[in-house]
Formats: sequence, C-alpha cells, structure tokens
Amino acid sequence: MASTIAKNGARTTAQDIDVKALFLGDKAENAAAFKQFLNQLVDDHIGWRQNYLPADHPAISQNDQDSPAFISTNERIASVLAEVSQRMRSGSIPWNSAGRYWGQMNSETLMPSILAYSFAMLWNSNNVALESSMATSQMEAEIAEDFAKLFGFSDGWGHLSADGSIANLEGIWYARCIKSIPLAIKEVRPDLVQDKSDWDLLNLSVEQILDLVERLSNGDANDLDRVKAASSRSGRNLAKLGKWIVPETKHYSWLKAADIVGIGLDQLVSVPVKHNYRMDVAALESTVRQLAASKTPILGVVTVVGTTEEGAVDEVDKIVALREELKAEGVYFYIHCDAAHGGYARSLFIDEDGEFCPSYEQLKPMHDRHNVFSYDVTIAEDVYNGFKGISDVESVTIDPHKMGYVPYSAGGIAIKHKGMRNVISYFAPYVFEKGVQAPDLLGAFILEGSKAGATAAGVWTAHQILPLNVTGYGKLVGTTIEAAHRFRDFLTGLSFAIGNRVVRAYPLNMPDFNMVDWVFKADDMTSLAEVNRLNEQMYDYASYLDGPVYSNRFITSHTSFARDDYGDSVLPFLKQLGFDTAEWEKTGSLTLLRAAIMTPYMNDDDLFNLYSSQIANAMKRKLAEALAAAD
Amino acid sequence: MASTIAKNGARTTAQDIDVKALFLGDKAENAAAFKQFLNQLVDDHIGWRQNYLPADHPAISQNDQDSPAFISTNERIASVLAEVSQRMRSGSIPWNSAGRYWGQMNSETLMPSILAYSFAMLWNSNNVALESSMATSQMEAEIAEDFAKLFGFSDGWGHLSADGSIANLEGIWYARCIKSIPLAIKEVRPDLVQDKSDWDLLNLSVEQILDLVERLSNGDANDLDRVKAASSRSGRNLAKLGKWIVPETKHYSWLKAADIVGIGLDQLVSVPVKHNYRMDVAALESTVRQLAASKTPILGVVTVVGTTEEGAVDEVDKIVALREELKAEGVYFYIHCDAAHGGYARSLFIDEDGEFCPSYEQLKPMHDRHNVFSYDVTIAEDVYNGFKGISDVESVTIDPHKMGYVPYSAGGIAIKHKGMRNVISYFAPYVFEKGVQAPDLLGAFILEGSKAGATAAGVWTAHQILPLNVTGYGKLVGTTIEAAHRFRDFLTGLSFAIGNRVVRAYPLNMPDFNMVDWVFKADDMTSLAEVNRLNEQMYDYASYLDGPVYSNRFITSHTSFARDDYGDSVLPFLKQLGFDTAEWEKTGSLTLLRAAIMTPYMNDDDLFNLYSSQIANAMKRKLAEALAAAD
Repeated sequence: MASTIAKNGARTTAQDIDVKALFLGDKAENAAAFKQFLNQLVDDHIGWRQNYLPADHPAISQNDQDSPAFISTNERIASVLAEVSQRMRSGSIPWNSAGRYWGQMNSETLMPSILAYSFAMLWNSNNVALESSMATSQMEAEIAEDFAKLFGFSDGWGHLSADGSIANLEGIWYARCIKSIPLAIKEVRPDLVQDKSDWDLLNLSVEQILDLVERLSNGDANDLDRVKAASSRSGRNLAKLGKWIVPETKHYSWLKAADIVGIGLDQLVSVPVKHNYRMDVAALESTVRQLAASKTPILGVVTVVGTTEEGAVDEVDKIVALREELKAEGVYFYIHCDAAHGGYARSLFIDEDGEFCPSYEQLKPMHDRHNVFSYDVTIAEDVYNGFKGISDVESVTIDPHKMGYVPYSAGGIAIKHKGMRNVISYFAPYVFEKGVQAPDLLGAFILEGSKAGATAAGVWTAHQILPLNVTGYGKLVGTTIEAAHRFRDFLTGLSFAIGNRVVRAYPLNMPDFNMVDWVFKADDMTSLAEVNRLNEQMYDYASYLDGPVYSNRFITSHTSFARDDYGDSVLPFLKQLGFDTAEWEKTGSLTLLRAAIMTPYMNDDDLFNLYSSQIANAMKRKLAEALAAAD
Repeated sequence: MASTIAKNGARTTAQDIDVKALFLGDKAENAAAFKQFLNQLVDDHIGWRQNYLPADHPAISQNDQDSPAFISTNERIASVLAEVSQRMRSGSIPWNSAGRYWGQMNSETLMPSILAYSFAMLWNSNNVALESSMATSQMEAEIAEDFAKLFGFSDGWGHLSADGSIANLEGIWYARCIKSIPLAIKEVRPDLVQDKSDWDLLNLSVEQILDLVERLSNGDANDLDRVKAASSRSGRNLAKLGKWIVPETKHYSWLKAADIVGIGLDQLVSVPVKHNYRMDVAALESTVRQLAASKTPILGVVTVVGTTEEGAVDEVDKIVALREELKAEGVYFYIHCDAAHGGYARSLFIDEDGEFCPSYEQLKPMHDRHNVFSYDVTIAEDVYNGFKGISDVESVTIDPHKMGYVPYSAGGIAIKHKGMRNVISYFAPYVFEKGVQAPDLLGAFILEGSKAGATAAGVWTAHQILPLNVTGYGKLVGTTIEAAHRFRDFLTGLSFAIGNRVVRAYPLNMPDFNMVDWVFKADDMTSLAEVNRLNEQMYDYASYLDGPVYSNRFITSHTSFARDDYGDSVLPFLKQLGFDTAEWEKTGSLTLLRAAIMTPYMNDDDLFNLYSSQIANAMKRKLAEALAAAD
C-alpha cells in the first residue's frame, strides 16, 4: 500500500478515485495508512521547527524537562487527555458505521481532510489577513475559484464561513446592502438616477446596481464611500427594501438571519411547498405579482437545493425564469440559493472538463461512463434543471462540512459577481491596507473576522483529491443518492408481523437527493396521533435517548411536519396512510423518521442486503417494544 | 518523561503547572511527548471503530485495498498531502519562535488543545444539538460555567463562537433584542407597563426587562411569543432604540456589527480615548448626558479590555459606576465588554478558590505567592479595577483563540443572566424540542448553527489543564505581560549609530496588558511623514513582505493611528518625538511598529538577553537598509 507521501509524485488522474480509500473506514480498515500519513506530516512540522534558525537557543532544556513541575504538568496533561478520550468514546455516535446509521446529515469525514486539518493546525494560521496565513489564504482563494466554477459563475467568488447559518446571513446581508444602493445613490449622486422613481430604484437588477457602483468607483473616490455610508449600513431604509420570500417550510436559520440583519420577521413572506416539498413556483409568482401590484418591493427570494427535512431540490430554473419574465415588467428580486446541503451535488452534472452537462439526455450516459451508480437510479429532469439554474442566482450557501465530507466547522458561500464584495467591504487598520489589490484580505470582504487557516487546508485537500465534477465529488455524492434509492426501495413494502398486528413502513415521496423520510404505522391504527406516538417512540429507541448509541443496532433521526409550515402539502402522503383532511386538521402535525444519508458504502449489493436485513431485525424489535409501551 | 495517558490517574494540582510542558516547543523540544500522546489517542479512536458491533461485516476488504484504483487513490492522497506540507512549510510564520516573533497576536498554541482537537475531530461532533454531540456539548456547557465564573456572573452563561467578530455581533444583537422588549410589551400587554412613558421603557434596566419577561413566561404561554414577535426581530423600532457608543478607535468589527444587526452606522457614536488609549469616561458621561438631554436613548456602550492596537484596558468599573449614577436619573444603557483579547487575563486576579482578589493591595502578594512574575512588573490599580468591573456588564466577548492559546477558530461570549437567552431564542424542528429543559440545545440560543464539537474539546482540555485563575491561565498570561515589560524596557533608550546618523526607539505608553507599540526615528528627521516612511519600511523588512519569513531574524507587525480615530490622544507621544500639533494636523497619521506579545518563553533573564541582543542586531541591519532605501 503506497501510503507514504510522494515528495514530488505526479498526481494520478481523477478517473481512478476509489471512494473506499478516502476514509479511515467503518472498521478503521485504513488505520495503518492514516497513522503513517499522520506521523509523516507531524514529522514534517517538527523538522520545520527544529530547522528554524538552528543557532537560536532552545527555550526548553533537558533540565527543564527533568524538573518535578514539568513532569507533574505532563502527568496532568495525560490525565486530562485520558478524560477526553473516555468522554469522546462514551459520548459519540458511530457515524462511521457502513449501514447502521441512518440519521442526521453525518458520516465519517474524508481522511485526507482530517490529516490536512490536523497538520495545518500546528501552524494555526488565520485567514482573516494574508499576513497571518500566506499558505492557507492562497488555498482559500483557490477554493473560491472552485466554488465559482461549481456554480457556473464566470466572474464569481466565494469563501469559507463558520457554517451554513452564517453563510445564509451573509447572503441576506448582501441582498440588503446591494438593493439599498440605488436609494443611497439617489441621495448622494441624484444625477446618476434622475430618470428613476423610487419603485424603479428598488427594482434595479443586481447587474444594473453593480454598473452604477462601477461608475462611482471610476469617478471621485469619495463618492462610493459616501454612497456606501448612505446605504443600508446606515441603518436607514431597511423597511423600504421590501419582502424576503422563503419557502413555507422555512429553516430556522432564515428566521434568525432576517432577525439579525434587521430586515425583520414582519418582512418574511412564505410561499407554500408542493406535495414534493419544492417551492410552488406558481404560488411564488402570484405572491410576487400581488406584492408588486400593491407596490411592495421584493428584496429577495430564497430557493433551497436540498431541504434539511426532505432533501427536496427546488426548481431554481423556474424561479430564475420567473424573475426574467418579471424583470421585463419592472420587478426584480435578489435570489439566494440555500444549497448548504445540496451544493456539492452539482458536481454530478459537471463533466471532467468543468462543463455543465449540456442536456438532460446526456446525463445518464455521462454517469454510466464514470460508473457513478451501480443501481437503477434516475435523476429526475426537473432536478437536473434545478441544479442547472443555480448559475443565475446571486449567492449560494454551500457547506463543505455537509456533503463536502470535511470536518466541522466549514460552511461556505459563493457569489455570482466579484464586484458584489465592494458593496459590503470594510477595512481594519492593522490587517488591511486599503488600495492593496490582494484577493486575500478576507476580513474586509466577509461577515466574520478571524478564521482558521486549517479549515481551508482541509477543504483544499478535499477539492484536490475530489474535483468538483463527475469524476470526484460527483462520484462520492452519487454513492449516497444510490444508497437513498436502495433504502427507499427497502422500506417500500416493508412490513412486520408483531403479535397479531402488522406494522408497515410508508416512505415519503421519491427523494430528489439523498434523504429518505418514512413513517411506521400499524394497520389497526385509526388516528394520526397514535401513529405519531409510535414514530416518536421509535425515534427514542433508535437514538441517544435510549442509552449508549454504541450498542444500538439501528440509529435514525426524526422530524415533524407542522400544519403551519407544511399546509396541505402532506395530504397525498396522509391519504396513503389512510387519513383524511379532517384528521390532519385535528392533529396538526406529522412525525416522520428521517435518514439524511451520507454513508459512502451502501452502493454494494451484498453489503446493502446484509445490513438491511440486520436493521430490519432491529426495527422489528424496537417496534415490538414501542407497541408494547403504548399498550 | 511521563507522557502516556494515565488511564485513571489522579489529576495533579494546578500549583505544579510548568508552562514549558504545555507547548510543542519553540524548537519542538516536546516532540516525543506530542507524538506519543497523539498516537495513543488515535489508537483509542481506532479501537473504538474496530469494536463497534464487531460482528458487522467491514465495508473495506483486503481485496479492495489491493485494487489498482485503491492504490492509485492512495497515491493521489499522498501527492496532495505532500503539496499541503510544502505549502504550509513555505507559507507559514514561525510564531513558535521564543524570541524572534514580536508581531501579531499569535504564538504556538497549547499542545493538549491541539491533541484534543485532532482527536475529537475523528468523531466530528456538531454542538448545534445534543443529539449529535453528547460528549462535546457537555464540554461546552462546562466551558460556559468557566466563562461565567471567570467574569463573576453568578447567574451567567456562555458559549463558544466562530470568532470575536461574531461574538461582538451577538453582543449587539442581545442588546438590540432585549432593549426592544419593553416597547413590544407596550404593544402586546400594555397593562404590564401602563405607568411608563416610551422614554421610561427605553431606559429600563436589563434586570427590569428580564423580570417582565419572567412574568410573561409564567402567564399565558403565548404572551411571551407574541412579545418576542413584536420585539426588534420584527424589524420594527430599530431606530428608536438609540445610539450605540464605541471608543473612537473603533475596531472594524464594531462597524460591521452595527451594520449587520440593522442598528446602523448612523447610530454609532464614538467617544474619544485618552492619551493612554482608554475610553475617556468623562467624555462618555458628557456624551450620554447630551443625548439624554435631547431624549435620545442610548442602546448600549462598548468597553474594551485589551484594545487590538495598544492593549489598553478600559476603566470598566468607572463606566459601570457612571451607569449606576445615570440609572438613578432614569437613563440606562446596555454594556458589552469586548474582551476578545484581554478576557483570559482576568484569571490573573482570581485566586485558587475562584474569588476575585478582594483588594488591590492583596494582588502583588498573591502573584508573589504563585510566582507569576520573575521581573519587576506592576499591574496598575486602574487595570485591576477595570478587570474587576467586568462582573457588572451584560455581555463579554472572550476569544479562546487569542489569549486562551487554543487553535483557531474559537471565539466566545459570556452573558450575565441566563434569562437573556430566552429573548433571542429560536427553535428548529429537527434539532430541538421546545419545552425540553436541556442546556445544550445550543442552536436555539446562539447566532450560529452548526459548530465543531472539536473546538469545545480543545477549549475544555485547556481549561482543565489551566484553571481560569492565578494558578493556571493567570500564570501563562502573566509570562506575556512580563515579556511586554521586558520588551518595553529593552526599547527604552535603545539607539543605533548607523553611518553618521542615530536612530532611536520610542516606545508608546506603559502597556496595560501585553502589547508594546513603538516608533523608530532618526535624530535628524524633522517631519512626521519621514518617520512614518521609516517605520513602514521597517515593517516591510520585518514581515512576509520581505520574502521568506522563515529566515527573517526579527518579525513584527505594524499599525497606523489616523487622526480621525485617535484625535489628539497621540499628542503627548508626538511631543516626545519632537513633533507639535501642527505637524500632526498636517500629516494626519502615525505609523507604529506593534508587538502583541504571546511568547510564553520571555520570562527568563538569560534567554531574554540572548534574544534581545540578537534582535537588536537584526533591527540595526534593517534600519540601515531602510535609511539607505530612503536616500
């Protein structure tokens, strides 16, 4: 096994990627390679310290190391680390399991990313400023290019963020700042917009606004600063910017983001989702038209690629098309795509040359060519179109710590136009020199300040090993979509005879991505409340709530659809369960079990069959207990 | 050397801490211990994976590992990691140097924290929710207690955040949300505040507001939700909340925070700093009184403990006393303490029983008892009082990745009253169950979402090894204050004869903390612009701008005081340089070299003398070059 670090080794082509070599392994099968890499990297670092100005006197002598205080401190370190080990081993979830864990959006992460992170941490660079992070800032700049390419932003940019919530917050901040610029120009340089009404100004496109900003930058240097000072950062005009439209199933991060950024929850407008949990674009259109008719501006629309509860992929292309149509009518809104979950999956549609697969018809042949699926998986045409449409939105949240398989915390954001940064930027005296044209003065261009360079090292390493196309991440993400299809097929028709009762599994709609929700129901159950109780109980038995997860033979997560958030989108599914509208109105919520599937190992017939029969056994035992508990 | 992990070892007492055992070492002197710990921890993890349901079939077989695709993927990993190693070694700063690096707020970080982080990362827990992080969420809850104790918040709480900018943003968000509650109550439950004018409502104390919230919680369950919906999260009333007061030297994170949170830069009011760079409390008082006289409310005041440019410690006690005085007059403002830099230094004032040193007179004896300083260091009485005063503010930013010596990214915030959380909280369906009383549903109570459990493991480990009192962090932070005093004394009177010119070092005021700023000036220089150029040039030669930092024999950072930000606070220092007010008005800025000192090794006479003579040589060579370049 070639696990030493090739000093000047040519990089093998991506065609050869074997997903099984990328992880430490469900049973730590690749432990030897991991340790060898790790120790070599640590030795590289140690050598670097030892060789730094070798004539300098070391601060720690052998005498120091032999002193009682030193020895006792070392013992203290040993004792604390022993407790860390005990706590981690007794309080962690076996996400590494190949086929027992069907719960939250977690799995083991990429071995090379863990290694790069651990290694880079020894230098502890801070990507807030180039001065503190020459190597890792450069890596983050390359990641920015990767993100821009992934989403088809030819003039785009991006960066890593603490997490998806912060990236979403940055997205709405971008929207707020940019859409506030025209009113600020009207105040500072009215000559530039004299033919425009306020309504016109609030409906300029982002491109038109950036053109105005560009013109300001090329004129009197102070004008742009004055316009920025009069923009939403002043605290004025926030309420004038209009409504922020989110799907009715709104993720709580959007509530927080609208709150924090001062737009406010009163300005949130929600649009229903369809029975497939995608935003209802027809409903969006009528909402927007109603608002426009009453001259209420629309700040922006959030579209979701990979909802956290159902893995649904919005028809981004249709939302973009709607915007084009409305633009001609003088109505314009910013679009932020929340692809925290699904962003990396766009790799599935990008060929080895970085081009988005030109037609839906060519998608399956491309996947066949790269052996993406070993099971009958069909990516729906509207999912293809949805992913394609992302290239026309202004900003996208993408979390490497989700489908990027990189350790926490690594969120990310990409923007369509580099120029958008100039609208939000700030400068700090000690880290930036205004005017210096370096792409890496990150602290000036992002919502956060200090940030670990090690995160960039972890993500950069992942991107180098797994290109963001069908040969790299496409293949890895593909294994999880395949697993979702296998898992849903396994649940379909799954039933258990328990005593004299029969319990059946009812999977939710065919997933757009890699998430499967389902409900267990005993045939004799006549109320939704009863069904909810069974599934809540099942979750209790299949989670940390049931004692040590380490010995639990089937682990899952759960979710709850409330009528307030889901409206009637659930009715077709409830009908399958045998419930009508009245029962839905009475109970008002539906509890489902939920598998956000990230295991990369469930694309093998034998292994899947082995594990699925094992977890079926575990399910049966838990169901028996749950039914008994209810009696 | 006892570097194995004691399986059930009793923890040695903190009295025995030897700072030299806590780090990998400037020359990697503790490399053997580091590697032994690391490999043992990795083996602990590997064993855990191997022992998870041992009868389960492994997903990766020997056959897989022998396949050409697997081997080539492994080679690819090796090649990428080799590039990571090359990039890190050629693009990193030797912060580990015992005495060459006198620049940014960086040093090597605590070896046990690095180890705990690397180890915990293998499990990749997410502290957003207990379900995904039983072990590390518990650690973060204990860190919260540590923070609360450190600041004397008997009913306090806290958590880790991505960085100090985010913690500051959370601080102003807390202020905005809490101060908006009374107006919301007036709208929803006017009976509760019927005797109060709007002015009264905008000047209720945080305690009074929390009492009202408490009364609401105990009444109709919906009332609190309705009040929250009518609070600033609605987007309304933001402008009514009044001014946000910051020191004139305002850190750029405060501009960003006021912008993002919708309060706006128009609402920022800055208060001058004194010649010691602390906020001028008399000026603050007159600002507040003027605002109050015109019935302009004051949302809050930011006080800084450890400014990023000068290490100045505000007289927090006096700001708190001013608030008490004004409260009696019906004027109240929230106080956020930005102790991102200085927070951990409060440990210096806390005895082994967790009590804040009761009087200034007892401080020196306490430090002597614990051998904190080995040099003549006097902590000024107003610095003691400033740190003491923190227990009366509402929220504090404290960054473990600064003086906590923990790897990036680890910011933090502490709040005085746990109840403050209820004002900002949200719930997400899949991670929280509203009503469940668990302290660890972090995502509901913080600004962010997903967050690395490994960060908590790193910080928890540090806190276990170094208690937040004089025996632990106090001692470590003490070494850096001592180094600052030594370094300033070294600069005082330092002069170089270069050709026929004499260049002298002029250190800024006696530091409150561990930062030393200074200026080089040739005796024959008659303009401030000329002096600025010399110091800018010196920075170029003593930073990454001069090629490989690895071979640079003296490394520093720099800062610039602009007249807009510093007003006339710099005049006494300029007078020392021989410049008058006219020269200051003409040039408008002052460039200084700046050492934010974190090296823990410069508390030894011999070592300090050795390094200081070496860096004096390096300075002389650079000065000669800089003077030549200017000619």
